[in-house]
Amino acid sequence: MSYVSFPSGKQFDFVAIGRLCIDLNANEINRPMEETMTFTKYVGGSPANITIGMSRFGMKTAFIGKIADDQMGRFIASYLQRNAIDTRNVITDRTGALTGLAFTEIKSPTDCSILMYRENAADLKLTPEEVSEDLIAQTKVLLISGTALAASPSREAVFQALYYAKKHGAVIAFDLDYRPYTWTSPEETAAYYNLAAEKCDIILGTREEFDMMERFEQNPERSDHVTASKWFDHSAKIVIIKHGKEGSIAYTQDGVGHRAQSFPAKVVKTFGAGDSYAAGFLYGVMQGWTLEKSMEFGSAAACIVISSHSCSDAMPAAADVHDYIERCSRGEITAS
Amino acid sequence: MSYVSFPSGKQFDFVAIGRLCIDLNANEINRPMEETMTFTKYVGGSPANITIGMSRFGMKTAFIGKIADDQMGRFIASYLQRNAIDTRNVITDRTGALTGLAFTEIKSPTDCSILMYRENAADLKLTPEEVSEDLIAQTKVLLISGTALAASPSREAVFQALYYAKKHGAVIAFDLDYRPYTWTSPEETAAYYNLAAEKCDIILGTREEFDMMERFEQNPERSDHVTASKWFDHSAKIVIIKHGKEGSIAYTQDGVGHRAQSFPAKVVKTFGAGDSYAAGFLYGVMQGWTLEKSMEFGSAAACIVISSHSCSDAMPAAADVHDYIERCSRGEITAS
Amino acid sequence: MSYVSFPSGKQFDFVAIGRLCIDLNANEINRPMEETMTFTKYVGGSPANITIGMSRFGMKTAFIGKIADDQMGRFIASYLQRNAIDTRNVITDRTGALTGLAFTEIKSPTDCSILMYRENAADLKLTPEEVSEDLIAQTKVLLISGTALAASPSREAVFQALYYAKKHGAVIAFDLDYRPYTWTSPEETAAYYNLAAEKCDIILGTREEFDMMERFEQNPERSDHVTASKWFDHSAKIVIIKHGKEGSIAYTQDGVGHRAQSFPAKVVKTFGAGDSYAAGFLYGVMQGWTLEKSMEFGSAAACIVISSHSCSDAMPAAADVHDYIERCSRGEITAS
Amino acid sequence: MSYVSFPSGKQFDFVAIGRLCIDLNANEINRPMEETMTFTKYVGGSPANITIGMSRFGMKTAFIGKIADDQMGRFIASYLQRNAIDTRNVITDRTGALTGLAFTEIKSPTDCSILMYRENAADLKLTPEEVSEDLIAQTKVLLISGTALAASPSREAVFQALYYAKKHGAVIAFDLDYRPYTWTSPEETAAYYNLAAEKCDIILGTREEFDMMERFEQNPERSDHVTASKWFDHSAKIVIIKHGKEGSIAYTQDGVGHRAQSFPAKVVKTFGAGDSYAAGFLYGVMQGWTLEKSMEFGSAAACIVISSHSCSDAMPAAADVHDYIERCSRGEITAS
Repeated sequence: MSYVSFPSGKQFDFVAIGRLCIDLNANEINRPMEETMTFTKYVGGSPANITIGMSRFGMKTAFIGKIADDQMGRFIASYLQRNAIDTRNVITDRTGALTGLAFTEIKSPTDCSILMYRENAADLKLTPEEVSEDLIAQTKVLLISGTALAASPSREAVFQALYYAKKHGAVIAFDLDYRPYTWTSPEETAAYYNLAAEKCDIILGTREEFDMMERFEQNPERSDHVTASKWFDHSAKIVIIKHGKEGSIAYTQDGVGHRAQSFPAKVVKTFGAGDSYAAGFLYGVMQGWTLEKSMEFGSAAACIVISSHSCSDAMPAAADVHDYIERCSRGEITAS
Repeated sequence: MSYVSFPSGKQFDFVAIGRLCIDLNANEINRPMEETMTFTKYVGGSPANITIGMSRFGMKTAFIGKIADDQMGRFIASYLQRNAIDTRNVITDRTGALTGLAFTEIKSPTDCSILMYRENAADLKLTPEEVSEDLIAQTKVLLISGTALAASPSREAVFQALYYAKKHGAVIAFDLDYRPYTWTSPEETAAYYNLAAEKCDIILGTREEFDMMERFEQNPERSDHVTASKWFDHSAKIVIIKHGKEGSIAYTQDGVGHRAQSFPAKVVKTFGAGDSYAAGFLYGVMQGWTLEKSMEFGSAAACIVISSHSCSDAMPAAADVHDYIERCSRGEITAS
Repeated sequence: MSYVSFPSGKQFDFVAIGRLCIDLNANEINRPMEETMTFTKYVGGSPANITIGMSRFGMKTAFIGKIADDQMGRFIASYLQRNAIDTRNVITDRTGALTGLAFTEIKSPTDCSILMYRENAADLKLTPEEVSEDLIAQTKVLLISGTALAASPSREAVFQALYYAKKHGAVIAFDLDYRPYTWTSPEETAAYYNLAAEKCDIILGTREEFDMMERFEQNPERSDHVTASKWFDHSAKIVIIKHGKEGSIAYTQDGVGHRAQSFPAKVVKTFGAGDSYAAGFLYGVMQGWTLEKSMEFGSAAACIVISSHSCSDAMPAAADVHDYIERCSRGEITAS
Repeated sequence: MSYVSFPSGKQFDFVAIGRLCIDLNANEINRPMEETMTFTKYVGGSPANITIGMSRFGMKTAFIGKIADDQMGRFIASYLQRNAIDTRNVITDRTGALTGLAFTEIKSPTDCSILMYRENAADLKLTPEEVSEDLIAQTKVLLISGTALAASPSREAVFQALYYAKKHGAVIAFDLDYRPYTWTSPEETAAYYNLAAEKCDIILGTREEFDMMERFEQNPERSDHVTASKWFDHSAKIVIIKHGKEGSIAYTQDGVGHRAQSFPAKVVKTFGAGDSYAAGFLYGVMQGWTLEKSMEFGSAAACIVISSHSCSDAMPAAADVHDYIERCSRGEITAS
């Protein structure tokens, strides 16, 4: 059964709007960042990672965002282009904004901190008038990401993109991606997350992210069912609530909760799990697969990414994911 | 025919959220502000004026807002209380914010400029968590005003109030009240005005204000009908578009445009016309009058205010408005 | 004996740099500001008041400052010109800055509070490159005022003016005029006050203002002698420390402390006492009078100002001050 | 002949105040930063580098500064301590400030750009009250660096340190180190550089840096002699003006200009040349060497640093510098 129908006759399968930044990943592992001496540079940012993932799955993709007018910004544009992502709507900032940075450490597979540089970040300078209506008119799916709502004018640019997507019938996916450091207060965050989520068809987030959105509401038992139901009163068709190691649950408008199996992995670090899951899941749904199969595909994609050093660069091709699932089914892969 | 039905069993008839400030009106008339030497102090701010108007009409009213912890703030609270407006949700700022000021000149009845002081204004410091759900649960009508959307956290407080009003079934009125000086850009303004208007039952604004909201839309002929129709796809029941001296038109969901007669006045200055009109119109609609009669009542209330020196202090009682209409019908009042 | 020698052959006697603002003085007296309903507009700001005073004494004066591009700014420029103050170096801001405001109440002659509006104040936008070297080269005295040090770029403009004054041999007077509300911290204040005072010939301030400057120094007994001595190691020739009702003491480089008699007054309010004292004292010193006679002239000028409603507008002519002194000597004036 | 005499009986030879940051140096050379994929982390910042240099020469050193409360800040403190630099006055910021970053590329020995991250930098948060008078009372030399003057409260902290150094007789060295990106305008920069330089005994800078300071002065031929003379009217004993490849010239109060020979080097990159020169020169002067010998020692130290990958980590011991000079004199080192 198909829960979402995608428009046909569009030039792009998938367009994302939001954060483009740089990950500086620790080369030395099993040590704190204080003792990490060298770092490797990758493109980062949740919507960038998801778009790279979709492109590697063979989807026709584009990005709407803003980059700094510096060496880091030029690297990002070039990397997206090399991954076959259309960058006609990736604007170069001219105000002296900087590329956001995320330094990582890899102390252990389960204990890794991130040090963020988000002051005067170029990606948050995207304005509503820079969002291309033509591009959004030509896509089946628009993905928005919560960090782009953290500041003006990027926040207004996202609402402008939502307006265009509604007008032209694109399916809208919302990856909550809540990062407290760019927000003034949880109350401010809740306000704009809720306004955006009202307009979205597919909402993906962790239980904690949905809790933040319910700051002014009554859901004391943190019920996934209560959480999901609210959004079906607006535009939502699918709401996915992620519970970390305990797996995810996908609700649909008929009130049913769907669960899927998970896979073992030799974990290097946990960064990037959510982005690869989102790419895999959305790819599956766009293929017309069942929710369960789509969720499995997302889980397997996530396993591949957390077994490697980067987020963006490690995004697998579809064949790699199918292969991973098969190897798991043959018992060839076990948890680290 | 009733276009809006108001909930019953509520403690308050009317609650407004937004700007509370001070008007400093020129005492000497027929001269520019440079040559105006003394000023008289009044409570000001569009939602404050409308609430004072409603209270004078005998409505049970309350206000949600924030005042500076200074002599001006204390004067505002005291004036509201003397006008029988409940101030339990008028919060005193503790961060050193200032009371917004509006100096006026009265060069001629049709040529009056305003000098605004809006830096670090206390009214824009209202936070979502300071908005009382109980108060909104106990009102028939919630009025929001556009200037409160101009900055955080006041903007989020308005969206929080809208959430509570929807939840508890209050009728929501939106007085657009667009003042460019507190906004970063027209694009930012359009974004939040549209998000707010989607949730409102009654929308009142000038043609120019609706033009600003349609910045990214197609309405090249500035058709009132096109403008109004858009909002009936969301929550609106009544959309009033004001054309200054040419009068106003009220659209209803059935596609009908309603017009009403206007009245002559001996104009001192034009400030406050919109606020008294809004108060009079909303009062009429709440009495169950026809739109035409409600509009006439609003027009007559406006005539009384523009014939006097202040906005807030000149708000008439209902009997005064009825009397004005009668005197006009007897030809006792002619234009200045 | 002459403690300071003034250069000759200069076009101007006196040039001041710094704050130009508007006082809005309560018309109704013996009540708090909350209950004050009308206000009268005057030019204000300590260096403006002193310059107006000097001009009324017959000195050839000019002002270096910045005004808002609005009705208040134009009123200030016009008022200075009407008082024969050269405004060639009074620049109009083009960034949307506002005129600083000071609302006063007159609860009693000794209990009057001020409500300041100093956000985005135009006078603090003066830049170093806007300071006219020619003008400073053509003055006998340059007066600086502490409030102009509170923020960039006005602070740098003052240091630029000090550089020009040193270069061209103008006598530099520093009216400390410390107003906490425009400063970030007392430590920041102390830093710039001390850097400026090092370059000044005549320093006038209250005991509390000198205490603030000695924040990081050892003067636990708050000795005026210790305070004054420090500045004679730099550029100072005269240091005046004001002790309110207990009178003032003027130190000179020879280590002598000079005191003068004070006069009775029918006090309306205390605002403006310091400015009229400074004008009177500096006028006396420029006439070659003894310090004692100059201090007396300053005191009498202050008595006249505090007996009237405004600061700037009440600045007396020299004949008025002499007359006041004579009437006091004849016992015609007694304290209120 | 000795141009500066250093106080005796002090616990420290050398204390610096100012910037502490992180250099992220390109590992791959001969390519632009866009194509640089890995970076190595070093402590950076001109005064930090100079202090590390002084410590490696065997001087007893301490640092006055502020670090972020994060992994980068802790690395900096730990590195200073491992280099025997006293960190009792290295304060940890608690406001969420970040460690400044400098990414470098090494395109060729003479063509290397830097990408700076200086928003909300922890080093600029040092306050005047955090500067230890005791520490400055116990040092022979205090070094200040221009970047610390770029913003409040760090700027006031430097003036506070200058006040303490004057009070306790420390020799003050000023490394101009002008970096445009942290300043609002060249006029602002000139104002504070000049105020600081007036209080310094030894001033080191490039011709371009002195030009910036002379923005409002008359030196159209950019004469080094005119530049140096100005400072001898204040506190200066030695003024060094650096002309890049053409070498440096040191002026002394007697009006004499001193020049020294330079050395060949196999240049990897030019970063760090100024810092190692300053350390070498100041070390020489403190040893009582002639200016010429001190300048040569500085030049040789600089040659060692620019022949290696880092700035701070490459700072040589005194024996290494003597050895380099000897090898040059034997013709064993030639230019790359």
